[in-house]
Amino acid sequence: MPDTNPLRLGIAGLGTVGVGVVKIVRKHAKLLEARAGRPIEIIAVSARSRDKDRGVDIARYDWEDDPVAMARRDDIDVLVELMGGSDGPAKAAVEAAIASGKHVVTANKALLAHHGQDLAAAAEKAGTVLRFEAAVAGGIPVIKALTEGLAGNEITKVMGVMNGTCNYILTRMEATHQGYNALFEEAHKLGFLEADPQLDVGGIDAGHKLSLLASIAFGTQVNFDAVELEGIEQISLRDIEEAAEMGYRIKLLGVAQMTGRGLEQRMSPCLVPAASPLGQLEGGTNMVVIEGDSVGQIVMRGAGAGEGPTASAVMGDVVDLARGLDISTFGMPASRLVPAKPATAAVPAAYYLRMELEDKPGALAKVAAALGEAGVSIDRMRQHGHQNTVAPVIVVTHRCSRAQIDAAMEGLAKTPVVKGETVAIRIEEV
Amino acid sequence: MPDTNPLRLGIAGLGTVGVGVVKIVRKHAKLLEARAGRPIEIIAVSARSRDKDRGVDIARYDWEDDPVAMARRDDIDVLVELMGGSDGPAKAAVEAAIASGKHVVTANKALLAHHGQDLAAAAEKAGTVLRFEAAVAGGIPVIKALTEGLAGNEITKVMGVMNGTCNYILTRMEATHQGYNALFEEAHKLGFLEADPQLDVGGIDAGHKLSLLASIAFGTQVNFDAVELEGIEQISLRDIEEAAEMGYRIKLLGVAQMTGRGLEQRMSPCLVPAASPLGQLEGGTNMVVIEGDSVGQIVMRGAGAGEGPTASAVMGDVVDLARGLDISTFGMPASRLVPAKPATAAVPAAYYLRMELEDKPGALAKVAAALGEAGVSIDRMRQHGHQNTVAPVIVVTHRCSRAQIDAAMEGLAKTPVVKGETVAIRIEEV
Repeated sequence: MPDTNPLRLGIAGLGTVGVGVVKIVRKHAKLLEARAGRPIEIIAVSARSRDKDRGVDIARYDWEDDPVAMARRDDIDVLVELMGGSDGPAKAAVEAAIASGKHVVTANKALLAHHGQDLAAAAEKAGTVLRFEAAVAGGIPVIKALTEGLAGNEITKVMGVMNGTCNYILTRMEATHQGYNALFEEAHKLGFLEADPQLDVGGIDAGHKLSLLASIAFGTQVNFDAVELEGIEQISLRDIEEAAEMGYRIKLLGVAQMTGRGLEQRMSPCLVPAASPLGQLEGGTNMVVIEGDSVGQIVMRGAGAGEGPTASAVMGDVVDLARGLDISTFGMPASRLVPAKPATAAVPAAYYLRMELEDKPGALAKVAAALGEAGVSIDRMRQHGHQNTVAPVIVVTHRCSRAQIDAAMEGLAKTPVVKGETVAIRIEEV
Repeated sequence: MPDTNPLRLGIAGLGTVGVGVVKIVRKHAKLLEARAGRPIEIIAVSARSRDKDRGVDIARYDWEDDPVAMARRDDIDVLVELMGGSDGPAKAAVEAAIASGKHVVTANKALLAHHGQDLAAAAEKAGTVLRFEAAVAGGIPVIKALTEGLAGNEITKVMGVMNGTCNYILTRMEATHQGYNALFEEAHKLGFLEADPQLDVGGIDAGHKLSLLASIAFGTQVNFDAVELEGIEQISLRDIEEAAEMGYRIKLLGVAQMTGRGLEQRMSPCLVPAASPLGQLEGGTNMVVIEGDSVGQIVMRGAGAGEGPTASAVMGDVVDLARGLDISTFGMPASRLVPAKPATAAVPAAYYLRMELEDKPGALAKVAAALGEAGVSIDRMRQHGHQNTVAPVIVVTHRCSRAQIDAAMEGLAKTPVVKGETVAIRIEEV
């Protein structure tokens, strides 16, 4: 018999997303009841400040100063954790909820990237369900697609642009012909950056998300530490414009792939074809690409952040719980998730290289020699007009390993005709 | 306690999709068990011919000549119906399965478009679950996204290109500069067409799918008869090339939208911007666009047909059932689905008109007058060089209602300078 009692929520965290959840529960009470088969009610809320004006009336809900105390209340069925942070109160509240037999819905990618395995095991032991659709790619129901809809597939690859702020900065650099610093400032003023901007522009936030997708896709224990991380701070307007001229766009792209050598997880700026779905992604939009042995390629696109989209993802999980969904956190029991051997840069690729060459006869030949010694062969090369005594040179290589590129970079650094640092960006033919 | 006994399947229909399902169950037995928490086994199969070579060994399964008898077997938990057809054995088998307390997974859009309401009510009464992910947009988990992932949203619009064969014909017409008939023949030779090609090119198959999405999206009873249907047979190479010159592509596009006047459902050729995700859809690929009040716009793309993708969708449903998912067929109890008032062409749009004009002074003025009398105003007009004594003229109108366009077409037909029939295609600014 399905449960027809109300599903009772305690919401910890009343920032943008928490307020969005309150609004949906209130506005769509009847619709949610029709869909879930039972009412969905907010019983208690907890946040830093009780009196802050949030544009929604929270006086009708019980207030708890301590989210852990709220998580333990007998009159809630689900803790909705929207505080964020990989440790501290968020972790304490989630653990308390699980220990006292409550389900958990969270948008907290940092928490799960660092403690997902333990929390999944704890939830299973307690017989509760831990869900996190809102933690990855905002409103796009990608956790559901991967865990449930595509459960008949061996997943071969997961890719995605999953940090809207980085994509905003990169697409605005191209559109406005301004450098990274100017657009970083713009994003900051618009409130697009996390309190610690490194989480965004350093690729950490997107790396968290990738590690969660990889766990579900490959049945492996979450291993965020094994994600090769590279942020977007080194991307110059020049690189964006050179890429555009060759038909590419630069995206902070995550790729997780099971290879013969182990699980490769990387989050780094890549050149992708401008005409591809990933290449055309503008602003804060996210895109996730999933490849499975039966389904082929599935592409999902939507808003990656913001009140409505993230609250929509939270509510998808809440309705699932109201309907009685019982599923393991990462799609199979925590005890069956295997530790994956990390494979660094296992998959070869073509690379874009940009360097400054001294304007001397034979300089290009020296570059070609340095690349050749590292086993890197040249697909295309273009030299621009001189700027003072140096000339910018762009090289597109044939497919090679990251190790070969690193060796080539070392060789180039030793070549006196190469001035400053050479930039190397992977080309992903998505 | 979750059920750890095997989930036992009876498969009715061993065409492309049925064989694909058998292959997945066999190849991924361990993976499926890990994900579902219990083994998934095929107990019995039924098809027209027992001895046909299908490339998979079916001798290990019980054979049933009669799918209805199979549906009633005590040793199956789920009927997987892959025979197709809105009535006849498919309907009889599904009804028998439900009546004897079995769950049903089907890829049969025609069956659900015609009998979905009754079957949903029967399944609920019997306490069984009826799922149909594979019936819409092949491998794209769109039923799941709409019913579950986006359950916190009031859905405002659903759009999609959901017949791969039509999209193949239209994109190949543009690529090869051949007319409709040549590409229809090509699609036929490649086995892309249904036994009754009208199901594809007449838009019926895609209309079935749209009516199912609309039911979930708007909480309404499936009403396929209210879908305004228009096929692609009237689309000429000339229209495709004219559209391309103006930055558009012609797609067989489905749109379902709740308007102030009722539920609009239409499946018809439309001009869409060539640079939009829908405009860029090539070949047999499908795309579904969902708009919700919180989530904004979600776009999902993937293979719309074929053994692997469709079997993937079937297996998604099967794994859901193994995990104990209990959900109403159309996302809420059948008794709560309301009959929606059909609203024909409620939403105004710009239109593309193509006509042949007699090459006489004042001819264009007469066209403008006929349009003006119908209340249709002209955004752009272009006249090409004469061909003999007639000149092709293209008009793009400002936004107007379908009724105004129909009145304009009537007026143009009465104008002696207009030769033959005027073509009118809606422009959807997606």
